[in-house]
Amino acid sequence: MKLATLVVNGAMSAARIEGDQAVLIYGFPDVGAVLRQNALEHAARAEGLRVAFDPLETLPVVVRPEKILCVGMNYRQHIQEMGREMPSYPTLFPKWSQALIGAGDPIMLPPESVQVDWEGELALVVGHRVRRASVDQAWGAIAGFTIMNDISMRDWQYRTPQWLQGKSWEHSTPLGPVLVTPDELSDAARLTTAINGQVVQSAQVSDLLFGPAELVAYISTIMTLEPGDVIATGTPGGVGHARRPPVYLQHGERVTVQIEGIGELSNLVLRDGTEY
Amino acid sequence: MKLATLVVNGAMSAARIEGDQAVLIYGFPDVGAVLRQNALEHAARAEGLRVAFDPLETLPVVVRPEKILCVGMNYRQHIQEMGREMPSYPTLFPKWSQALIGAGDPIMLPPESVQVDWEGELALVVGHRVRRASVDQAWGAIAGFTIMNDISMRDWQYRTPQWLQGKSWEHSTPLGPVLVTPDELSDAARLTTAINGQVVQSAQVSDLLFGPAELVAYISTIMTLEPGDVIATGTPGGVGHARRPPVYLQHGERVTVQIEGIGELSNLVLRDGTEY
Repeated sequence: MKLATLVVNGAMSAARIEGDQAVLIYGFPDVGAVLRQNALEHAARAEGLRVAFDPLETLPVVVRPEKILCVGMNYRQHIQEMGREMPSYPTLFPKWSQALIGAGDPIMLPPESVQVDWEGELALVVGHRVRRASVDQAWGAIAGFTIMNDISMRDWQYRTPQWLQGKSWEHSTPLGPVLVTPDELSDAARLTTAINGQVVQSAQVSDLLFGPAELVAYISTIMTLEPGDVIATGTPGGVGHARRPPVYLQHGERVTVQIEGIGELSNLVLRDGTEY
Repeated sequence: MKLATLVVNGAMSAARIEGDQAVLIYGFPDVGAVLRQNALEHAARAEGLRVAFDPLETLPVVVRPEKILCVGMNYRQHIQEMGREMPSYPTLFPKWSQALIGAGDPIMLPPESVQVDWEGELALVVGHRVRRASVDQAWGAIAGFTIMNDISMRDWQYRTPQWLQGKSWEHSTPLGPVLVTPDELSDAARLTTAINGQVVQSAQVSDLLFGPAELVAYISTIMTLEPGDVIATGTPGGVGHARRPPVYLQHGERVTVQIEGIGELSNLVLRDGTEY
């Protein structure tokens, strides 16, 4: 099953995606509400207005996650090519919901940063409250998967040893366009990121050092995960900052993250203040 | 004015503190609700039930802040004594509201950590929404000040380069007992932390490298700050992890953070699972 959060006739609604149609799920303003009310079975059957599905009209799948945790250094091949040792623990950093934008929103280049970079990522969304979950319990707590472009202001990220300030810029981080239930994501699924159609990142999600369930189990040791919480699983090699010379996103470019089985998250990059 | 969040007869309420009395502010379940509804003037006049004020019966001043940002490396004397250069930018890391506990709650030592450390801190609470605020605007956006004990699981904090996982442990971080409006906090106010009455940290809040308004202005460049958001301004020298040999919190100890003009935040330390 695929779910999305749409705006139809000015109102926000969760929807089930069937081919090129979206079926509105009345009473649920976003996919987060479906999860918090434990209503995935209802969502699978609900029959509301049917509209043509346009991924560019989606909002972030979960509009206001209580928590967004992101993972660094998590693709084996990328760690190897950087000449580093495999880490024993996942590296975690935060975003807040103000950072999120939809699949149709432009990524705005703020006047304060000249190093805005891409990071295509598989993200999971939590479906059930868990604390100190085993890996099996953790797998059962995953409602599904979506795509995040973990846009990073590198100049701010590296101002201090803690990455937070480059990682949660307001209105920067596309999340979507759909949530797919775990049965729709193959281990062999490939993630690619492209700038104006040119592929810059490509990896299989099976190359993740810490997989989705391990991440949920690990984080749930520290704190309770709640329905709607989002965990971004990390990005493979090929980000702009690591290129020689480094490359950053420019006004007018289009950055597209694709994951087989989920779809694509494609956003125009614009200077902040540009009308669109 | 001093405000607190109390539980009286099983119900949560914001209250104004007058000497040893608490005056309930009906309709506002916590100080966060007072701020989000821009009701500080109402809070100053409201007349509800008067009860004896016991700081040990307070909940976190704001029970569920949308955002909690903490600052590292921010006391000049401490930076100097560590032989480091003054940083050009504040170092920021996150907590989430699940980490918060009240002034009367025990700090629970989780079975997963053997390095639970103290960090007495001045915390500010945002009163008005701000983005890209000047320092003057930022000062006007501060509703007031409270105390945070930024309890840190050092073994988890240093597992990876990002501190998050040692910094937002569930039910670990006392915040309170009261919010004081800015007029009640003197620049010369002293912060002290004591373990079982023995002082381990002592500094004037005027020694902060980045002061409260500068922090609000800086963070608001990155993201909108909302009423009820909490910023912990950093801890002075004297934490347990930096001692030789290092010292960590032990079952049965009491850790007390005091700031002149605000009050004291005193919590018993217990092994997780201990009945109290």
